[in-house]
Amino acid sequence: MVPVPDHGISVTYRVVADSNTVEARALDICVEQTVEVTESLWRDPRIADRVVGRVESIEDAGDGVFAVRIHYPGAVVGVELTQVLNAVYGNVSMKTGIRVMAVEPSPGLAAAFPGPGFGISGLRARLGIERRPLVVSALKPIGRSVGDLAGFAADMVRGGVDIIKDDHGIGNQAVCPFHERVEACVEAMAAAGAPSGRRSLYFPTVTGPVDEVLDRALFAKAAGAGGLLISPLVTGLDQVRLLVGETGLPVMAHPALAGAFFASPDHGMAPSALLGTLMRLAGSDLVIFPTWGGRFPFTREQCLSLDRSLKSDLHGLRRSMPVPAGGLSLEQIPSQLKVYGDDVAFLVGSALYEQSPDLAANAAFFLSLVQ
Amino acid sequence: MVPVPDHGISVTYRVVADSNTVEARALDICVEQTVEVTESLWRDPRIADRVVGRVESIEDAGDGVFAVRIHYPGAVVGVELTQVLNAVYGNVSMKTGIRVMAVEPSPGLAAAFPGPGFGISGLRARLGIERRPLVVSALKPIGRSVGDLAGFAADMVRGGVDIIKDDHGIGNQAVCPFHERVEACVEAMAAAGAPSGRRSLYFPTVTGPVDEVLDRALFAKAAGAGGLLISPLVTGLDQVRLLVGETGLPVMAHPALAGAFFASPDHGMAPSALLGTLMRLAGSDLVIFPTWGGRFPFTREQCLSLDRSLKSDLHGLRRSMPVPAGGLSLEQIPSQLKVYGDDVAFLVGSALYEQSPDLAANAAFFLSLVQ
Repeated sequence: MVPVPDHGISVTYRVVADSNTVEARALDICVEQTVEVTESLWRDPRIADRVVGRVESIEDAGDGVFAVRIHYPGAVVGVELTQVLNAVYGNVSMKTGIRVMAVEPSPGLAAAFPGPGFGISGLRARLGIERRPLVVSALKPIGRSVGDLAGFAADMVRGGVDIIKDDHGIGNQAVCPFHERVEACVEAMAAAGAPSGRRSLYFPTVTGPVDEVLDRALFAKAAGAGGLLISPLVTGLDQVRLLVGETGLPVMAHPALAGAFFASPDHGMAPSALLGTLMRLAGSDLVIFPTWGGRFPFTREQCLSLDRSLKSDLHGLRRSMPVPAGGLSLEQIPSQLKVYGDDVAFLVGSALYEQSPDLAANAAFFLSLVQ
Repeated sequence: MVPVPDHGISVTYRVVADSNTVEARALDICVEQTVEVTESLWRDPRIADRVVGRVESIEDAGDGVFAVRIHYPGAVVGVELTQVLNAVYGNVSMKTGIRVMAVEPSPGLAAAFPGPGFGISGLRARLGIERRPLVVSALKPIGRSVGDLAGFAADMVRGGVDIIKDDHGIGNQAVCPFHERVEACVEAMAAAGAPSGRRSLYFPTVTGPVDEVLDRALFAKAAGAGGLLISPLVTGLDQVRLLVGETGLPVMAHPALAGAFFASPDHGMAPSALLGTLMRLAGSDLVIFPTWGGRFPFTREQCLSLDRSLKSDLHGLRRSMPVPAGGLSLEQIPSQLKVYGDDVAFLVGSALYEQSPDLAANAAFFLSLVQ
């Protein structure tokens, strides 16, 4: 066989086991995620040495739990995000007591993906904002007319919201058709921003049929949208890579469905692996997640771990902007700001509309909290 | 607003609550999955009556658990699979104690999707097999050369395997490139089947980059493949619909990643909802799942519930073929056959290779078990 460059990936699993069983469990993961056959069928050294996952380390974390680090060779992982996901958790998702804690692509694998097209610094340059946190809000709820939503967008621009996104569930329903909405919002935002010269960006939801996502994104770009919102767990993670490459617009990832992975400490994936490393590898410039203290049960520790996985070194990939959300109130901004630091984009939805009947004034107040 | 035809969907959730809190929890789901705003922002009757989810029933199932049935109107659900998934579980996946037990599309929504292009009867017609269960096996493991895999395929045809699929993790890695593999396997199978006139079908794995899946599928069709294998939780569920519509080939769904939804009885989705109703709605002609007694912890009850959701009436959509797998041994076939009945396609992988060194003879034995 021809030599294959190492585009492999290392995955650290939290494995429920005892000291007598952990090695067998680790080997079982190595096999299940690669060759999926009994030992007699992979013993051939061409397969055993080059294809089967390899246990790199096993650490006893106490309480019947072990950290098992496994490396999957490039021959198995290839250079496609779909197979990366599959190698990381495809089949073992259906076994018990195995949780993905960390995903570490090799330099070779990371180099196969462009990652975020803008990243934190590119977004700042595009918005003309050097240091402060960004403020983000959402056009909502579904059921409002296109005209209503465009009006909200205009008010938010007047108040100084940096990024205005659609609610993630507003796609192309008959009550709020995509093309009409995008044109109306872009136009309303341009008119509202003209007096001040403000550069707010509109991110419409492009989550939709697999053969329409890119068309909608290109339409949005041509219409003047400043970015795109997508739910990668719903559309398939690889859609993010495609949008980044084909549109040249910043992409914001929404975590819809991701909670399926977060329910149990013994199963699924840590938010920092799924919404952090994997979303960033796919190319998300911004990643929305429910911050602590809101209406979702995320802990402060989970949020900070996710924040780190978006911003720490990843073989030269651009850093993604964390977007804490999920019922965040305006009152929480100052304290959360101290924790996340300046490189953060706060997403406030309901609370922005409810602060007072004057949405533009509410937006200005929101902005003042980060200035 | 113009009237919207009802393309809604009803979802039954298993909700952890007590009799004092269950109504509030049910309303919270109705809101979270639709308008995602606090009550003051959805009280307008145009939104409250037409957009917000509606509790249809609440039943106390005992032990602090309730069955909560919620209807999401067509105005929210629209006619795109991505938004169906999002409405069913998008945001509430990130809350605790909420599991999707059943998904019931309205006749209007079901009519918006073609569903399986073949279904059980269409597959039988294509294979020329009137009544008996089908036998399915896999080309594996990854690391074997294209020539090796094509040789296995030929042996399986000689022995009488009906459907021969790639291992789901064999995509387009350098060790086993897609185009070369598909051509070699189709050719080897045609040559092996010529003497007997046997019509075995080859289902290559088309899981891959979002902008290459359809190209690979069309290449496979042109090369003479009889169907397609895809992992819809990895690629995005809507890829199935696209493949059905654009290729006219039968599509087999693999459950990679699906286990993220199955870990806890209090969270995620029941296999019958995710691998059953939703895979069928997307158009899967065959759905692979780990049957009980194999190397995955699925129960007999879960498997039978899934079997029912693939075969029972769904507003005229064709019935999907269940494909029990996941470490199934040849010894288990007779007893499982009694439970699944004739409309089943048994997938045996490792065990087929291991039965004896003569793969064709092993395949013939496998076939004899269902004849």
